[in-house]
Amino acid sequence: MTQPATLHWIGQADGHLVLLDQTRLPTQIVEIDCHTTQEVWEAIRVLRVRGAPAIGIAAAYGVCLSLQPILKSRQDSATRRRQAARLAIEACAHLATSRPTAVNLFWALQRMRDVIAEAQAETKGSRGSPWDLGQRLLAEARTIHQEDRRQCASIGRHGAQLLADLPIGSGILTHCNAGALATGGAGTALAVLFTLAEQGRRPHVFADETRPLLQGARLTMWELAQRNISATLLCDGMAAQVMRERRVQAVITGADRIAARGDAANKIGTYGLAVLARAHHLPFYIAAPTSTFDLSIDSGDEIPIEQRPAAEITDSFGCRTAPEGTQVYNPAFDVTPAELITALITERGVLRPVTRESVQRVARGLSHPAAIDAQHTSPRK
Amino acid sequence: MTQPATLHWIGQADGHLVLLDQTRLPTQIVEIDCHTTQEVWEAIRVLRVRGAPAIGIAAAYGVCLSLQPILKSRQDSATRRRQAARLAIEACAHLATSRPTAVNLFWALQRMRDVIAEAQAETKGSRGSPWDLGQRLLAEARTIHQEDRRQCASIGRHGAQLLADLPIGSGILTHCNAGALATGGAGTALAVLFTLAEQGRRPHVFADETRPLLQGARLTMWELAQRNISATLLCDGMAAQVMRERRVQAVITGADRIAARGDAANKIGTYGLAVLARAHHLPFYIAAPTSTFDLSIDSGDEIPIEQRPAAEITDSFGCRTAPEGTQVYNPAFDVTPAELITALITERGVLRPVTRESVQRVARGLSHPAAIDAQHTSPRK
Repeated sequence: MTQPATLHWIGQADGHLVLLDQTRLPTQIVEIDCHTTQEVWEAIRVLRVRGAPAIGIAAAYGVCLSLQPILKSRQDSATRRRQAARLAIEACAHLATSRPTAVNLFWALQRMRDVIAEAQAETKGSRGSPWDLGQRLLAEARTIHQEDRRQCASIGRHGAQLLADLPIGSGILTHCNAGALATGGAGTALAVLFTLAEQGRRPHVFADETRPLLQGARLTMWELAQRNISATLLCDGMAAQVMRERRVQAVITGADRIAARGDAANKIGTYGLAVLARAHHLPFYIAAPTSTFDLSIDSGDEIPIEQRPAAEITDSFGCRTAPEGTQVYNPAFDVTPAELITALITERGVLRPVTRESVQRVARGLSHPAAIDAQHTSPRK
Repeated sequence: MTQPATLHWIGQADGHLVLLDQTRLPTQIVEIDCHTTQEVWEAIRVLRVRGAPAIGIAAAYGVCLSLQPILKSRQDSATRRRQAARLAIEACAHLATSRPTAVNLFWALQRMRDVIAEAQAETKGSRGSPWDLGQRLLAEARTIHQEDRRQCASIGRHGAQLLADLPIGSGILTHCNAGALATGGAGTALAVLFTLAEQGRRPHVFADETRPLLQGARLTMWELAQRNISATLLCDGMAAQVMRERRVQAVITGADRIAARGDAANKIGTYGLAVLARAHHLPFYIAAPTSTFDLSIDSGDEIPIEQRPAAEITDSFGCRTAPEGTQVYNPAFDVTPAELITALITERGVLRPVTRESVQRVARGLSHPAAIDAQHTSPRK
């Protein structure tokens, strides 16, 4: 596989972040260097980097960049230490304003805040230069990145096991992009399909183009082509017909935030797919790492939904496609209620059915799939 | 209302057809002159004129254009008479190959063939010059056009009556374009909304952009703006969310062909909307003239579905939006089974429920709405 890395850090604490600019795909492979927190904020905002896990990782590296002005000289003083910590804390606050829905962003920033707090506590005992803080922050960002890579692999394995009953060559529908471009590893929903393909089960992927920003057409189709996985692109409004014709045997997507009762926010259009899957008696799966869980809220109704600019719909593709003055509705996400999710695939195993109880269990860290999969542990239908 | 005519004929039998080029809307108002049958065929094929009723009308005028080479001189002879009839018959056959799904095309061409046959029968009695045939054909095309205009008005009235129970200011979702641009009059589904607006019921229209060719964004939003009807544009994948949020109280679309049992082919995406409407307990209406009925087939499964070029999805609007070599699925239509259609609104009245019996009754020409609306004539639930 020759796909360039979605994001990677160059150098030590005074290094910089390199992002694959996803707004240019699939026609151009352009990497951009981010040397400031603001550049990362902007990259997240305009979707140069997107996908809940990847946003979290990018933000973590973005915090590291906040120390650059200090790290240029390696002088140490109590003032400079305070200044470094303040810059990092401000960076966390600023990066948290980049996009509102994906909880991995806030989860990753909280981990970075914890590192700052820990370093500050120790600094009171007069240890820890700005450089030390920078290295600690970078280590944490790298850990978040590395963990996500491993989690993607686990999600792929658990999901492939869950879908093992599907006939060889089954059609599987996905929406938006939940692949390597959305994560620090191989992806979430796409990791499952990649694993199935590696196991010789020859999935045929149906990819919704995913208006308005066409992540399915531009990114998912590109990733599938890189890996020689057979795939068919369709417009979002064609999914129901593809289901009706029995061209697909399952639907799988990623998620941006999952509430305590199992409701999952994901790219706009996902909820409709879940309703259509139910109407066509097809399983509807969501694959996401536990960093996507937000147990601080009970229901999906509490998930803030980002509204995006009208121009994404009216001026897409470099030309005006609606009359001047057109009013639009452009939510970036919708929420699929737990009742419509056949199973949730996490790095710790599969939740089926998706209930407050199974979410609690996986969030508490039970790592054996069988312990989470209610089908194995209880006689419930 | 200042909207230019969708299509109109200039002159007598040796005149020509003027079409509003719908591929250029909404940014450019361009009328094109068609002087040959082939130009009309091409205009239908590439959707310069589209919408089932409008295609039928355009094709009828397209038959008239086939006589142009003969009508340049007004000489008359048995040879020229035979030649004229042959050209007109060939034009009918050719125009029938332009697009496969909308039955109004074949219905209109059959009416033109009937005129040719009638003229030929009379010509055996030595009457009828090529000019006479040309005038007869033009008269028939004008009649089809004029009938459609009246039918649109009737559909608008019947539909507005059906929707009269909705609260003032209700949200109504539509898909693709079933307005003046799709017909010889005010439209089908949009005629209902226009009539509601005229009656002061202030409908707020939610318009699916309707990928791949964006007839909703480009054409429906343009028509609504011309008439100052409040409207919100959304991507197709957002319709489910708009329903979930109770922003819409009903869904209404046009149709391209309706089978004997009431199954209706319409723009791809319609079937999914009907499933979603059912899941959200919303009424789903189809508005279409009886020229859209095809009683020669029993079920929607028999309706031929046009497959359109991949480039409509991968190279839309002048830029590449998917990797090279992308395989696509691009059916132009889908079929909504009668069971999902709350009511069918025709120029002869409202069919509710939509059954083989109610379709038969309206097709046989019963013109009083109450006679067709089964809710009024039988105690069935």
